[in-house]
Order: sequence, then C-alpha cells, then structure tokens
Amino acid sequence: MDPSDLAWILAAFALVSLMFPGLALLYGGMLGGHQVLNTLMMVMGALAVTCLVYVTYGHGLVMGDSLGGLGIIGNPLDYLGFHNVMADDGAGGLMWAGFYVLFAAISLALVASGAAGRMKFGAWLVFGAIWLTVVYAPLAHWVFGGGWMITALGFHDFAGGTAIHMNAGASGLALALVLGRRHSMAVRPHSLPMTLLGAGMIMVGWFGFNGGTAGGANFLASYVVVTTLMAAGGGMLGFILIERIRGGHPTLLGLATGIIAGLVAITPAADAVSPLGALITGFLGSAVAAWAISWKRTHRIDDTLDVFAVHGMAGVAGALFVMLLGSPDAPAGLAGVLRGGEVSLLWREPLAIIITLAYAFGMTWLIATVMNRITPIRITSEDEYAGIDTAIHAESAYSLTPAGMATRTNPETRIPEETAPADRAGVAKRNTDQKEDAR
Amino acid sequence: MDPSDLAWILAAFALVSLMFPGLALLYGGMLGGHQVLNTLMMVMGALAVTCLVYVTYGHGLVMGDSLGGLGIIGNPLDYLGFHNVMADDGAGGLMWAGFYVLFAAISLALVASGAAGRMKFGAWLVFGAIWLTVVYAPLAHWVFGGGWMITALGFHDFAGGTAIHMNAGASGLALALVLGRRHSMAVRPHSLPMTLLGAGMIMVGWFGFNGGTAGGANFLASYVVVTTLMAAGGGMLGFILIERIRGGHPTLLGLATGIIAGLVAITPAADAVSPLGALITGFLGSAVAAWAISWKRTHRIDDTLDVFAVHGMAGVAGALFVMLLGSPDAPAGLAGVLRGGEVSLLWREPLAIIITLAYAFGMTWLIATVMNRITPIRITSEDEYAGIDTAIHAESAYSLTPAGMATRTNPETRIPEETAPADRAGVAKRNTDQKEDAR
Amino acid sequence: MDPSDLAWILAAFALVSLMFPGLALLYGGMLGGHQVLNTLMMVMGALAVTCLVYVTYGHGLVMGDSLGGLGIIGNPLDYLGFHNVMADDGAGGLMWAGFYVLFAAISLALVASGAAGRMKFGAWLVFGAIWLTVVYAPLAHWVFGGGWMITALGFHDFAGGTAIHMNAGASGLALALVLGRRHSMAVRPHSLPMTLLGAGMIMVGWFGFNGGTAGGANFLASYVVVTTLMAAGGGMLGFILIERIRGGHPTLLGLATGIIAGLVAITPAADAVSPLGALITGFLGSAVAAWAISWKRTHRIDDTLDVFAVHGMAGVAGALFVMLLGSPDAPAGLAGVLRGGEVSLLWREPLAIIITLAYAFGMTWLIATVMNRITPIRITSEDEYAGIDTAIHAESAYSLTPAGMATRTNPETRIPEETAPADRAGVAKRNTDQKEDAR
Repeated sequence: MDPSDLAWILAAFALVSLMFPGLALLYGGMLGGHQVLNTLMMVMGALAVTCLVYVTYGHGLVMGDSLGGLGIIGNPLDYLGFHNVMADDGAGGLMWAGFYVLFAAISLALVASGAAGRMKFGAWLVFGAIWLTVVYAPLAHWVFGGGWMITALGFHDFAGGTAIHMNAGASGLALALVLGRRHSMAVRPHSLPMTLLGAGMIMVGWFGFNGGTAGGANFLASYVVVTTLMAAGGGMLGFILIERIRGGHPTLLGLATGIIAGLVAITPAADAVSPLGALITGFLGSAVAAWAISWKRTHRIDDTLDVFAVHGMAGVAGALFVMLLGSPDAPAGLAGVLRGGEVSLLWREPLAIIITLAYAFGMTWLIATVMNRITPIRITSEDEYAGIDTAIHAESAYSLTPAGMATRTNPETRIPEETAPADRAGVAKRNTDQKEDAR
Repeated sequence: MDPSDLAWILAAFALVSLMFPGLALLYGGMLGGHQVLNTLMMVMGALAVTCLVYVTYGHGLVMGDSLGGLGIIGNPLDYLGFHNVMADDGAGGLMWAGFYVLFAAISLALVASGAAGRMKFGAWLVFGAIWLTVVYAPLAHWVFGGGWMITALGFHDFAGGTAIHMNAGASGLALALVLGRRHSMAVRPHSLPMTLLGAGMIMVGWFGFNGGTAGGANFLASYVVVTTLMAAGGGMLGFILIERIRGGHPTLLGLATGIIAGLVAITPAADAVSPLGALITGFLGSAVAAWAISWKRTHRIDDTLDVFAVHGMAGVAGALFVMLLGSPDAPAGLAGVLRGGEVSLLWREPLAIIITLAYAFGMTWLIATVMNRITPIRITSEDEYAGIDTAIHAESAYSLTPAGMATRTNPETRIPEETAPADRAGVAKRNTDQKEDAR
Repeated sequence: MDPSDLAWILAAFALVSLMFPGLALLYGGMLGGHQVLNTLMMVMGALAVTCLVYVTYGHGLVMGDSLGGLGIIGNPLDYLGFHNVMADDGAGGLMWAGFYVLFAAISLALVASGAAGRMKFGAWLVFGAIWLTVVYAPLAHWVFGGGWMITALGFHDFAGGTAIHMNAGASGLALALVLGRRHSMAVRPHSLPMTLLGAGMIMVGWFGFNGGTAGGANFLASYVVVTTLMAAGGGMLGFILIERIRGGHPTLLGLATGIIAGLVAITPAADAVSPLGALITGFLGSAVAAWAISWKRTHRIDDTLDVFAVHGMAGVAGALFVMLLGSPDAPAGLAGVLRGGEVSLLWREPLAIIITLAYAFGMTWLIATVMNRITPIRITSEDEYAGIDTAIHAESAYSLTPAGMATRTNPETRIPEETAPADRAGVAKRNTDQKEDAR
C-alpha cells in the first residue's frame, strides 16, 4: 500500500473506532437510566468479542480463500493470528484486517438494539461469538471476500449496506422477537443530549468508514466523504420535515435518528450518486426509517433502539435508490434503471437484499432460539423490574447525591465523615444511608 | 492535489466535523436543562441547512467567479451540484467544497448564541438559509474567494478570523438585540462537564480546521497545529489568571471559555506568530473575551452564549496582534508594525475588521427585523416559561425517573407493568403517572 | 519528514489531543458530583501548564543535547521557543515537539489521580510545573531523548511505558500518600456513562499515540494500531472475566478500567508482540491492574482514580511480557527470554522499571512534601466537606432545577420572572430561592 494511502487509512481506522463510544451513547441515551450501563457494555463487549474471534479464526472466514471455491465461506485457518495478512499484503493487509474487525464489531453492536434492557450479559457475549461466525462471516464473505453475491449477482454495495446494516437490522429484529417485549416499553429516553452526542460521534466515524473503504487517499475517498456529509444533512432535514408533515413537533430524537438513517442510506450508494443525489438519498433514508419506526410501533415489536428501521430499512432504501437513480457520472459509473441503466438491476439488487435480510433474520432467530432452549437468555422479570443495571451489573449509572447539588449558599449540605471501609459493601451501605437521609 | 496532501485533508475534514457535536455540547451545557435540546438542534440544524444551500447555489456564491469581476459576490450558478468543482480540481476541489460547507455551517451554528432559548425552530432554519446567502457568502467571498478584501486591502487572515469568527460574533449580537432578552437571564449552566467536553472536542476539531487550511501535509500545517495548541494553552492560563486578578475563583466555565477564546484568537494569526507568540495570542484573546463578557453583562445584552465576546472580540484581538507583533520568521513572513512592518497595516487591518463587523451586524439585524415583521420569530412568553424544549420540541432532555436511581438496596423501586401502547400519548400519560407516584 | 508520513503524524497529533477531554471524563465520572469540576480542571490545566513549560525550557530538557554528554538531562536552552526544532528538522521537528507536549501533558494529567477532590488548584498548577521539570523531563530524556536508559540498558519501550505510565503511576501514588486520604473515600461514581465515554475517547486517541510513535505512515504504524486494538479488546475481556472469577458481577467500571489497562500494557510492547500476543498482553494488563486495585483498597491508599494500578502496574506487566514472551517475528525483532532471547533481559528490563518507579515515587514525594511544608497544598476539611467544586471553584457541575424537568403535562412548573441583574450575586440568590421553592 502506498504510504499516502496508508496515512489516510490509519486515520480512517481511528475515526471508525470512534463509532463504538458513539453507538454506546446513542443507544444508552434512548433507554431509561436503569438500563443504560447494560447497553454501554453490550456495545463495548461486542468490540471485545470481535477482537477475539477475528484474531483467531474470524478473519479467515470472511477474507480467506473460499472453501471449495464456492464463494460461500472463507477458510478459517487462513489468517490465524493475522500472520498471513502481513505476509501477503504487509501494511495494507494488516490495516484491512483491523478495519474488518471494526466493521464486524459495529455490526454486532448494532444488533444489541433487539436485546436492550433484557438479555443476560454472558449470553450476549456468547451469542455475539456465534453470530459473528454463523451470520456475519458468511454475509461479509459474500460481499467483501469475493463471494457469490458480488461475483454472481453483480450487486453494487459500496461500503457494506448488506453485510453490515441490513444484516444488523434483520438480526436485531429476530433477536427482539425471540426475547420478547420488555415489560415496560414506555420508558422515556433518559438523556437525549447523550443520544445526540452519540449520533455526532458516529457521523464523524462514518467519514472514516466510507472514506476508508475507498482504499486510500484518492478521488474516490474525497467523493464519498462529500456524499456522506450531504446524506447526513439530508437525513436531518428529512426526519424533521416528516415529523412536521405528520403534525408533530420537530424533535431532537428525530434529528439524531435522521442523521443515522441518512448515513446508513448512503453507505451502499456513496460512490454511485451525485452530491445532490446523496442529499436526496439521505432524505429518503430518513423517510423510510420514519415509516418503519411507525410500523414497528403499530406491531408492538420491541426492537428497542430501532436497528431494523434505521439500519435495515434505510439501508434498503439506499440500495434501491442506486438501482433506480444511480448517476453514471459518479465514480461507480453505474446508471440506475430510470437513467437508462441495465434492467437486470431490477431483480439483481432486490434479490441480494432479500437473501441478506432472510438469511440474517432466519439464522439469528435460530441461534437465539436454540440458546434460549439450552438456558434462558433473558433476565428474570424481577431483575427487569429492579432495573438491569443494578440486577446484572450491580451498578447504577448515576449517583447524584445531595452533595452533588451542594452550592455555596447551602453550606449545611455536608457529607458525614466516612467510617466504613471503602469496599463494595461499604459503598452500598453508605448509599442506603443517604437515601434515608434524603427522605 | 497530491495524495499525501489529500490524506491529511481527508483527516482534517473529519476532525472539523467533530466541532458540530462539540459546539452543540459547549452551548447546551451552558443553558438550563429546559433549553438544551433546542440549542443542540439549532447547531445540528445549521449543518443540515448549510448542506442544502451549498450543494445548490451556495458554493458558487463564495468560490465562483466574481460577478462582474467586482470581487463582491461569486456566481451562484458556477458550482450547482458541485459538478464543476470536480471538473476543475478533482479530489482537491471536492475536498475544499466539503471543507467550505463545514466552515459555513459552523459560522451559522455559532450565531445561535444570540437566539438561545427563545427562537422558533422553523424560523431559525429559514433565518439560516437567508443569513448564509446574504451575510456569510459575501464575507467569505471577500476573504476565501479572492474578493476585494484580500486583493484591495491585503488583509492577513489565516483561517477565517473575519468571515467566520468576527462575522458570527457580530451577527449573534444583532440577533440577540432583535430577539430581546430571555425572560430569565439568570439560568445557571445545567451541565458544566458537558460544556467542557464540548470545548475539548472543538479543540480537537480546530487542529483540523487550522491544519487543513494549510492545504496539505506540509511545513505550514505542522506549524499551525503547534501554534494552535499553544494558543489553547495560553487561552486557558489567561482566563484563569484574569479570574484570579479580579478576585474570583478559577472556574471551569472560565477555563472552557479560555480554550475557545485562545483558539479563536490564533485563527487569523496561526501562520504569522511564533509558537511563544501563539501562547501570548491565546492569553490575550482570553483577556479580551473576559473583558467583553463583562461589557455584555453590564449592558444586559442577552448574547446568551457569548459569541460576540469569545468569537467576535477574541478574533479581533488575534488580528490586531498580528498587525502589531507578527513575526517575520513565521511562515507568513509578515512583520508587525512594532517589529518594523509596513505602517499601512495600521489602517488596513482595522478597516477590514470594522467593515466585517459592521456588515455582519447590520445585515443580520435587517434580516431578523424583517422576518420578525412578517411573523414573530420569538416563541411566546408562555412557551418560554414552560421551557422551550417541551414547548417547541415536545421533549425533555433528561428523564431520570426513580427507576433511574434504583439500587440493589431499594428493590421496592419498581416500574409498574406498562399497559398503554408505547406511542407518544402513552409516554406522556405514563410520565404523568410517575410524577404523581413520586409525590 | 516525508509528506505522507507527515499526513499521518498530523492526524495522530489531533487524535492524541482527544485524550485530554477523554481523561477528564474518565476521571470525572468516577468521582462524586461535588468533585468533578475540579478534576476536569486538573486535567485540562495540566495541558495548559505543559504548553508553557515546553515552549520555554521544557522541550530542551527532554530532547536537547545531554548536558555534559551524561545522558541524564538535556540542555534547557536548546529549544527555547521551539526555534531550533524548526531549524534542525522542519515540519518533522515541529510535529515531534507538538507530540512531546501532549505526551508530557497527559503524564501530568494522569498524576491528578492521587490528588482528586482535595488539592488546591493553584498548588496543582505549581506542582505540575515543578514535576514536569524535575520528574518527567529526566525520565523522558532517558527514554525518548537518547539518555542512558536506552543507551546503557538497551531497555525496550515502544511508546513510553516507563516515562509516561509507570512514571505517572508511581508519582500519583506518592502524591496520594503526601496528601492523605479524602475524608470520605466511599463516594460512588457520579456518572458511569461519562467514565465510559472517556475511556472510549482515550482508546481512539491511543491509536494516534502508538501509531504516531511509529514515526510515519509505514508498516510499523499499521502493526501497532492493530496490536493496540487487540490489547483494548483483551483488556475488556480480562477485567470482566476476573470480576466473574472473583464471584462478582461484570461491571461497566471494570470494563472501562480494562480498556485502559489493556492499552497501557501494550504501550511498551506494541511492536514486540504478535497480534494474538497483544490480546493476551491486554488481558494480563487487566489482571494485574485488578490485583493492584485490590492491593490499594486493602491498604486504604487513596490513589483515587487508580493511576498506580491501571497505569503503573499494567505498564510493568506489558514490559515484563515483552521480556518473557516478546515475539521475534514482530517488528521490534526482540525475542523474549522464554523464546530464546538474551538472558540479560531478565535484569535489564526489571532494573529500568525499578529505577523509573523509584525515581518517580521518591522525587514526587519530595516535591509534594516540600511544597506542603511551605504552605498546605490540601484544601481545608471544611471545604472538602462542602465539596471542592463549590469551595474552590464556586461552581456546581449540574443544575437540574425543576424547570429542567418540566414536561408538557406539568405546565405549572414555571420559572418566576427574573428581576435581579444576571451577575453572580443574582444567580446565587435565585438559586437559593429555587431551592426553597423546591422544599
């Protein structure tokens, strides 16, 4: 890899890593204050599990030689310990291995949407390892690893609309259905500023995600970061406008959702639409996500953080937009059907989408169901009522004691001298005392 | 554009985008908890509107050929859809277009300081589109687009001290005067950690902002990131010291303000002062900002988030510092008047500053006044008392219900099983119930 | 410096700067809500002081010619104002100067762990300047500046395990012992999401830290960012597993601690272990940190934010791992003793570690003790009970007034029209009124 390309890919890698705390906050802010820690841990834990899976057999499954030349799955032994990626491709091979770890990890982290607030944490980590192996790896091999979906269908997918976003959307939906609804679905987002911060960090990371997929510091990279920006802008405008059209108020949650939906929609399309087309793609992605959120609510499906709507359906919107309105002047040089492109796109693109959604949904449903048969993966009702953070993690997200609110004008608000040792028991005891004081 | 230059510009672009969530948090934290969402939306909405304006006619206004060769405004048709930027300059043209979108958007977002907590959101978006066209675009054309201010006055402005910071400062002040004071100006910052996080993210973004303005991975870029760092350090030391000199306590709000004021002051001067001079520039920028904040308080002007003081006046300080003490050894090679430079600087720099401030203030005042005549752009007093977040956006920033505070030692804190559907009405109802439970 | 290398170093510099708000949040979230502002200011203030020290005499102490050729300390006059770094090395010299400012500043900021919640802010700034001069500069000269530790001992330390992490750990411990325990050590973390956000931002910054140390966009950089990622993953898995083994719950605080401990452990070893070895290094770093935290608790030492355990001891773990299990295939080409490497590693590495820890601990203890004799550096007990934020900084981190909680369904929650001027006195008065209203 050329040093100047490598310079950008290194930066892009770091930018993508910003998506993990970003997604943790986006998700965590939308939940209740008694569920946020669990969600933060699911997102970061997804990264940890993916590191372990990838550095052993995972990278080979995705990018290794197709077993039997079938284009279905790679050889898990090809990249044990990442040794061969260095031997084959030096710095470039290593960077792609690193990138693919992040791609896989963010896909898994997104799936947490379907389990928020009600899944055992150990079960989540085990589910994650299985899901990466059985669901993500084949789908990624089909698209990134030279598998059948690209070679046989000629599907256009710039930066992972299928393997990442549609996959995560369908998988999250399946997991939500297996786990069932939370007992209380009407928990208000406990911190919308947290959610917006998360969306903003994800946007920044997405410039690395799409820009890094361009493979270096080249025209394509500059093109896709501009289309990515336009899609984020279009996504915001789209969601706010739809809220207004429906007679509601423009909300921050809508705006944050619009940013993400716009970014998802541009992911398969970033190199295949014009900059103005990118703005429209983001706008439409938001519209589709808004519609899918309503559909979910109507059917009372507890895909808690809307990965199906915002990643699955907005991803589909982006892919279909390319199919119909792809610009022949964009770097991909792909003319959409309405612009005189090949009519075969009309079945090739939808077929790839349907197969992706069906495979991800079906396999995830199967994994979760089988796991659930062996031992329940959902926490007990008692733990759920008590709050998953305290029940499973023995922690509360916030501890704003009266002392935290002390002001100069309230000198009487004092913390009593601490007598018990500072171990966990002491902490719990002290907290109880404060609660009683506060009454 | 050389690939190695492009590698840095791509990274710098992503870094600058971090300023948007950063500014949202900086501003949001300084407001009351009932106003924060509106402010977050104004900042992110500014980015969305700017995308739309730029990808259509905006970029041409700034960077297109001067209409009539007058150097006053560019041709809005030159860069429709960004097509010609690619044709003219390939990757480089595209990246600059992307950069200029972010520059324009952050300028508009800064102006929100003058409207915080009291402007209708739709009116803000409309105001934004007009302001970009009528105020920002000419000023940016004068400085970035080869307009008269650079050619006729030979004004030195490294990275946008006039078009961005002085412009935003004067515009924010004008908007604050048209809108009038909030009913309650004594709202305490609801989250100072949020404000510091915002300031930190903005600092990181500024390395991309100034470093990217250098145009590539070159000596100038390395020079200005170092001077930018020194100015941030000097700005912090400056504000804290001034607080002490005035007999007060060193505050976090002061420290965060000092970071930003230091960064603003170095923006026009980053290539024209020595590293030690940069530290002093930041220090002086803070001192000037502190003085301007006091001036604002004395006159009871509700430039809520101090854009006039921290961006307008600190920007002026940086430009004047170059005029007097610019180092001939710095990359710009500009000797300040006290170092034997051209005496004409003594009128050229102040003239450019005065014209910028006057134009921005006057035109913004005009736009806001005319809009206000057509239909009031300020929310009703009733909505303001109720809190703009709930009144205009139907949301509260935080929802730390008793459940959010549940601990293992308080198992009785339980959420009643949810019965109503999880739509907005249900949410509102449930929230009311909880409130009543809590009483 | 080659332009493509410079492109990456510029980006890496900006990434490292993200560590400052990151560390501020990591630390701030772990403290009580009445101590958080002080900690945020200590971290950012460390950056400000370091800018001042470095741009004057500091950089010469570390990177200047060794005084007398002894390899003990550099010439403080060599780099006054950074002029000679430009003359000697152009862009490269400047970037390294910038990098070293950040390295020194983060080391100092980490030491705040030993003083959290109980040190006068002015004393902290003075301590910082002295510590940088007397403790950090020699240690950094020994490792980064061609000093005796590298030349005489042949110590392997990729990116500052000794001068930064072990140094900060031992120094924090010494400062904690001189200052003594807080009156109440059982304060619960007031915001764990804040802590996780901080850990995530630090992780992103670490890719710049280790990747930038590679010196450019080269194979080594790509290698170390991948090992850094693996170590973060291993660190998370390690801490969670240890919590389970000990019979506890997996906690977010543990996961966040594990990220940092893993990153610390890989810092000296990033170029000397395989990717899988990096995951194990992170895992072991977490285990060692967990053990050291327990040790600290048992001895009731108030190293409040665990810099000794998480930076000092995990840093030692990483260095020892290289000594025993360094991979000859990794870029450093260093074979650990158990892999047939030189047996002399068995005394060279431990000797360097012991000298680093002893020097940092002893000198920091001396500085703090002498300062404390001259004038007490600890705040009064009264101020500590009242909360350091309000006592020393006259601010509260949060102000979630009833208005902040207003909802559409509670229109009666109104803010009374403000009558007093919006100066500090007015704010305090109003706040008191609200408190009374709330009763």
